[in-house]
Amino acid sequence: MNKVVQILSVLFIIAFAKASLAQDIQRIEPPFWWAGMEHSQVEVMFYIENIASYSGEIESELPIAKIRKTENPNYLFITFDTVEKKAGSYSINFNVYDTYYVMDYELKERSINSRNRKGFDSSDAIYLVMPDRFANGDPSNDSTDDTVEKVNRDFKGGRHGGDIQGIIDHLDYIDNLGATALWSTPLLEDNDEKYSYHTYAQSDLYKIDPRYGSNEDYKRLGDELHKRDMKLIMDYVTNHWGATHWMMQDLPTQTWIHQFDDNRGKDFPVAGYANSTYRQTTQMDPNASQIDETYAEKGWFVSSMPDLNQGEPLLLNYLIQNTIWWIEYAGLDGLRVDTYSYNDKKGIAAWTKAVMDEYPNFNIVGETWLHDQSQIAYWQKDSKIAAIQDYNTYLPSVMDFTLHDAIMKAFDEDQQNWDQGMIKVYDNFVNDFLYPDINNILVFAGNHDTNRINGDGLYNGDLKKYKLAMTLVLTTRGIPQLYYGDEIGMAGNRDTDGDGDIRRDFPGGWNGDEINAFKKPTDYQKGFQDFTKRLLNYRKNKPVLHTGKLLQYVPENNCYVYFRYNDESRVMIIINNNPEAITLNLNRFKEGIDGKENGIDVLTNQKINLSDSVKVPGKTSMVIDLDNQKRKERFF
Amino acid sequence: MNKVVQILSVLFIIAFAKASLAQDIQRIEPPFWWAGMEHSQVEVMFYIENIASYSGEIESELPIAKIRKTENPNYLFITFDTVEKKAGSYSINFNVYDTYYVMDYELKERSINSRNRKGFDSSDAIYLVMPDRFANGDPSNDSTDDTVEKVNRDFKGGRHGGDIQGIIDHLDYIDNLGATALWSTPLLEDNDEKYSYHTYAQSDLYKIDPRYGSNEDYKRLGDELHKRDMKLIMDYVTNHWGATHWMMQDLPTQTWIHQFDDNRGKDFPVAGYANSTYRQTTQMDPNASQIDETYAEKGWFVSSMPDLNQGEPLLLNYLIQNTIWWIEYAGLDGLRVDTYSYNDKKGIAAWTKAVMDEYPNFNIVGETWLHDQSQIAYWQKDSKIAAIQDYNTYLPSVMDFTLHDAIMKAFDEDQQNWDQGMIKVYDNFVNDFLYPDINNILVFAGNHDTNRINGDGLYNGDLKKYKLAMTLVLTTRGIPQLYYGDEIGMAGNRDTDGDGDIRRDFPGGWNGDEINAFKKPTDYQKGFQDFTKRLLNYRKNKPVLHTGKLLQYVPENNCYVYFRYNDESRVMIIINNNPEAITLNLNRFKEGIDGKENGIDVLTNQKINLSDSVKVPGKTSMVIDLDNQKRKERFF
Repeated sequence: MNKVVQILSVLFIIAFAKASLAQDIQRIEPPFWWAGMEHSQVEVMFYIENIASYSGEIESELPIAKIRKTENPNYLFITFDTVEKKAGSYSINFNVYDTYYVMDYELKERSINSRNRKGFDSSDAIYLVMPDRFANGDPSNDSTDDTVEKVNRDFKGGRHGGDIQGIIDHLDYIDNLGATALWSTPLLEDNDEKYSYHTYAQSDLYKIDPRYGSNEDYKRLGDELHKRDMKLIMDYVTNHWGATHWMMQDLPTQTWIHQFDDNRGKDFPVAGYANSTYRQTTQMDPNASQIDETYAEKGWFVSSMPDLNQGEPLLLNYLIQNTIWWIEYAGLDGLRVDTYSYNDKKGIAAWTKAVMDEYPNFNIVGETWLHDQSQIAYWQKDSKIAAIQDYNTYLPSVMDFTLHDAIMKAFDEDQQNWDQGMIKVYDNFVNDFLYPDINNILVFAGNHDTNRINGDGLYNGDLKKYKLAMTLVLTTRGIPQLYYGDEIGMAGNRDTDGDGDIRRDFPGGWNGDEINAFKKPTDYQKGFQDFTKRLLNYRKNKPVLHTGKLLQYVPENNCYVYFRYNDESRVMIIINNNPEAITLNLNRFKEGIDGKENGIDVLTNQKINLSDSVKVPGKTSMVIDLDNQKRKERFF
Repeated sequence: MNKVVQILSVLFIIAFAKASLAQDIQRIEPPFWWAGMEHSQVEVMFYIENIASYSGEIESELPIAKIRKTENPNYLFITFDTVEKKAGSYSINFNVYDTYYVMDYELKERSINSRNRKGFDSSDAIYLVMPDRFANGDPSNDSTDDTVEKVNRDFKGGRHGGDIQGIIDHLDYIDNLGATALWSTPLLEDNDEKYSYHTYAQSDLYKIDPRYGSNEDYKRLGDELHKRDMKLIMDYVTNHWGATHWMMQDLPTQTWIHQFDDNRGKDFPVAGYANSTYRQTTQMDPNASQIDETYAEKGWFVSSMPDLNQGEPLLLNYLIQNTIWWIEYAGLDGLRVDTYSYNDKKGIAAWTKAVMDEYPNFNIVGETWLHDQSQIAYWQKDSKIAAIQDYNTYLPSVMDFTLHDAIMKAFDEDQQNWDQGMIKVYDNFVNDFLYPDINNILVFAGNHDTNRINGDGLYNGDLKKYKLAMTLVLTTRGIPQLYYGDEIGMAGNRDTDGDGDIRRDFPGGWNGDEINAFKKPTDYQKGFQDFTKRLLNYRKNKPVLHTGKLLQYVPENNCYVYFRYNDESRVMIIINNNPEAITLNLNRFKEGIDGKENGIDVLTNQKINLSDSVKVPGKTSMVIDLDNQKRKERFF
C-alpha cells in the first residue's frame, strides 16, 4: 500500500497545475518518526510559506489529533496519532487555496530494545571531546559552502577542522585509555560568523554541522561506539539556540524566545536581547524579586544565543520531539544538558520527564554549575530539597561542581586551616545525603568551561598533583568524566587566555602535527597517559568502584583515606597530599580494612601489608585492592 | 496532714538510735518539683552513702513508679508519680539496713500560665552578656570560700567579679537600648581552678555560681526582666560538664560520661579523656567512619569538660528534669543550648522534645556552628533535610552562622568577583527555603566565641561598617542577637589575643572604671550606641521587621536592596557597601516599593522621594519606612 500511495502522489502532482514543488515545502520537523513510540502523538511542524493563511483541507493517512496555527501564517503544527500504526510511509496532502502539497510522512521501524536502552551509569567513565578540537578525520569538510565560518587554525576562537570522522578514527585510543562513554560537545549546525566552533549557538536542530559530517556520520559514530561496548552521550541544549537559527528570521510565535523591551537591550545586536544575570539561584530563592527571576532565567546567556521559552507549549514539544528524534535516530545512550538550571523550571521538568518516560532506563545529566550541594541536589530527580518547593525535575543525574571547586584548590593547599587541603575534598562528601541518587552524579577535574587541571591556572603540569586529582575522580562515588587532553597533560588557562586556550587541538589529530600524542606521546605526555590508562582500566573491571559504598575518614596531616566496599569487594584509597612522606598508622582504619591482612596497590603493583602501618610518599596516592587475598598469597 | 507527717518524722528520728542526720543525705535532685507538671513522673536522685548497698524499705506519701539502682551503691533513682498530687510536702522515709532516712519532698505550686509561657521570638532582640565581664554589682561575692578561683581582674582569663546584681543594675540600660531579651552565658557553678569565668565547665547543675549570686538572685533577674516586659534566656549545656563537677568523683555509672581507653587519653589530666575532633558533620555524613563519629561526638570539647552521654537514659532524664526545673524555678523564657550539634543525636532530640512538650510555646535556640545552610537547617525542628535521615531534633531555633560568615567578610570587600561584598550577604538568603521556620533563626554579627565586629580582626572600630552590619542584622528576617559591648564599639581579637580579649569588661561595670559607657560614653562609644539604640527601638515597634516577608534584589555595584513587607506594612532597606556614593535607579525595585511615592529614612529622619532615584552615600545604609504616607503628607 505504501507504494501505491507514493505513485498516487506523483500522479497528484502531475494532475494539478499549481501543485507544490519540493522547494516550496521548506521544513517538515521532525522529518520522520517511528512506529510504536510512547510519544505516539507526534506534532509535526510544517514550515511552508503562507500555509496557514487561507482555509484549506488536509488528507492524511495518519489520524490527526490536533491542528495548531500560530500568529505566523508560515507555520502549521499538526499532531498525528501514530498509535498502532505500523512502520511505513503515510501520505499527507494539503489543499490550500489553489495549491496542493503532496508528501509522505514516514514512520520508521524502531531498533530492537530501543525503549529499554540502558543509559550511561557509574560503571562508565566518560571522555569529553570538543569535536572541532579533537581530530580532523576529513579535511574536505573543514569549510563548507553552506556554512559561514571557514576553517582557520591560527585563530584560537576559530574553526579548526576537527570532525566526527576524527573522533571515529580515535575511538580505539579512547577505548584503550579505559573510557567507556563519549560525550561530545554539540555537533548540530552552528552557523555563527565567529566562534561557531563551540556549537552551542545552534542554527538547525535536525542537522549535524556539515563541518563535522552528516547526520549519517553521527549515527555511524554511535554504531562504532556500540561495537566497542561504549556509549554515546549527546550534548543537548534546551535553554537557547543561536541567533542564526533559521527560525529566528521568522519565529512561529514571538513567545518562542524570551524578548525584552526595556532599555537593557537597546545597544545590542539582536532585538529583544537582555543578558542573563547568571543568578540562577533565583530559581529557588524564596525571597527573590520577580525582576531578578526574570533576568536570570529569561535573560540570554550571551547576545548570540536567544533564550528559549520552555513555558511555550509549542516550543516545549518541539524540543521534546527533537530530543527523542536524536535518541532514536542515533541510538544515543544519554544526554548532557547544557545550562540545565537556567531553563524555565516547569518546562525543563516536563521536557525531562517526557524523555525519561520514553526511555525509562536512559540517563540524562544536567549542567548544574552551582557551588552548594543543596542547590545542586535540588535539580536531581526526587530531590527532597526541591520537594520543599513542590518541585521535581525528573533529571536522573547532576554534576558535582562542589567537588570540582575543591579539586581546583585542594592539591595546592597545606592542611593548616580547618578547611584546607584534603579536608576540602572530604567536606564535599559529608553532604552526600542531600542527593537522592549519589551514584548518578558526574565527578570531574575539569571540562570545556573550566581551567585545565594541568594548566598554569591550576596545577601547571605537575604530574603528582594530576595523579592525586585523578585518583580521587576515578575512585570516589559517581560517574567520572575526563576532559580530552587532560590525560596527556594539556595546558590551558581560561582566566587569562580565554575559552580557546582550554580547547586547544589535541596533538596528533591533524595531519602534519609534530607530535602525535595518540600514538607517540612525549615523555611528559606519557606520564599522564600511562597513569590515566592504568587507573581507568582498573576501574572499568572493578564493580565496587562503580556502585560500592563510600567510607571516608577525616584527613589527618593532609592525607585522605577512604574505602569503596560492598559485600564481596573492597578497595582502600590513600591520597597523601602532604609534600612529606607519611607513616600511616592503620589502626584507625580497621572498619574499612575489615580484617584484610594485605592488599595490592594497583598503581605500583606492590603488595601492601596492612597489619600495622603504611608508608606513603609525599604527594602520592595508593589504590589498594583488598580482594582475592588468598589467591594472591598462594602465588608468593 | 502534711504537718502531721512532719511531726511523725521527728518522732521517727528520735525513736531510732541510728537514724539519719541531715549531712548524711548528701544530695537530692531535683531538690523539689511542682504539682501539675506534664513531666509528672519525677525521677529523684538520692545521693547517700551506701544507700543502695543493702536491701531496704521505702515509705512514701508519693506513689513510686520505678526504682533504679546503678553500679554505684551511693545512688538511688526513685521515680515518683505526682499525677493529681497537690502542692505540698510529702514524706519519704527509707529504712536501709539499720539506718532510717526521714525527709520531705516538696511539690510547689506552679506560677500562673507557666505551661503556656511564650518563648522569645522574632519580635525580640537579644542582648548577650558574659556575666563575669558585664558589671560587678556586688563586690562582696567576687571570691567565695566555697569556690576555688579567686577574683583577678589583671588576668584576661580570670574571674573579674561581674555578677547577677551587675546585670540587674543595668537592665534599664539594656531596655533603653531597645533589646527585649537577655541571654547570659552560663551562671551555674563552675569550680575550675582557672578560666572558670566562662562557666561552661559546670560543677553543680542546681546551683548558681556564688560569685554571681544565689539561685534566688537568678530568679530575681527573671522577675526584674519581666517587670520590663523583657525575657530571660538561660544558656544551657547538655553536651558536657566540668571535670570538677561533684559527680565526677563518684559517677552513678561509668556510662554517664564518654570515656576512652585508647592511647589518645594517656597524656591528659583526666582519665578517659580524648578530645573531640570537632568534625560535627560526621553526625550527618552518610560516609562517615564509626571512629570519626565517635571521636567527633563523644570526644570531649576540651580536657576540662567531660562529655556527657545523652544516650544513657538516667543521665538524659537528669538533664531533662534539671532543665525543666530551671525554667519553672526562674521563670525562663527560653534556652540557648551550647554545642547543640555535638550531642548524641537521639538523646538531644529526646531532651528537646521533652522540654518542648512541657512548654509548647517555649523557644530553644541551639548553637549550630556550621558553615553550610543545609547543615544548619538540619538541626531545626521538622527539617526536611534531617527527614532524609529520618531524624527530627524538635529544636525550634537555630543560629545563622553562614550569615555571620558573610558579615565577617562582606563589609571589607569590593564586589569585584562573583561572590564578594554584598553578594556574599545576598547569597545567604537564597537558601532560606531550607529552613522549616525562617523567622525562628538567630542572626548576629558576633558572640562570645567570635572576633569582635569592631575589633582589629574585623572592622577595627569603623563606625560606618558597624552601621552596615547592624542595619542588616536588625532588619533582615530572624531574631537579632547583639553581643554586649558591640554597641559601644568594644574591640577584641580572638585569633591573635585569645578568648579573654573578646570578653573584656564593659567600661563602667566596675567601681572606679575611668569610663562609664552605660552613662557617659565617649564620643567614639556614643556613635555606636546612638545608632544601635535608634535602630533597635525602631525595630521594637515595627512588626513587619519581626515577621514580614523578605524580598531581596541581586546587589549591583556592591549595594544591596531588600524589603520587609506584609499586607499592612513595608520597609525598604538599602545597604550601600560601595565606598562611593550611588545613585540608585528605583525602577528596578517597583515590586518592593509597591506604588509608594515616598518614605522616611528612620536613620536620618529624612523624607525620601521614591519616584525616580535615590542617592546613597558611600558605605551608608538607609532604612526607609514606607508606611503611613498619607498621614505624613498631611503634615507637610
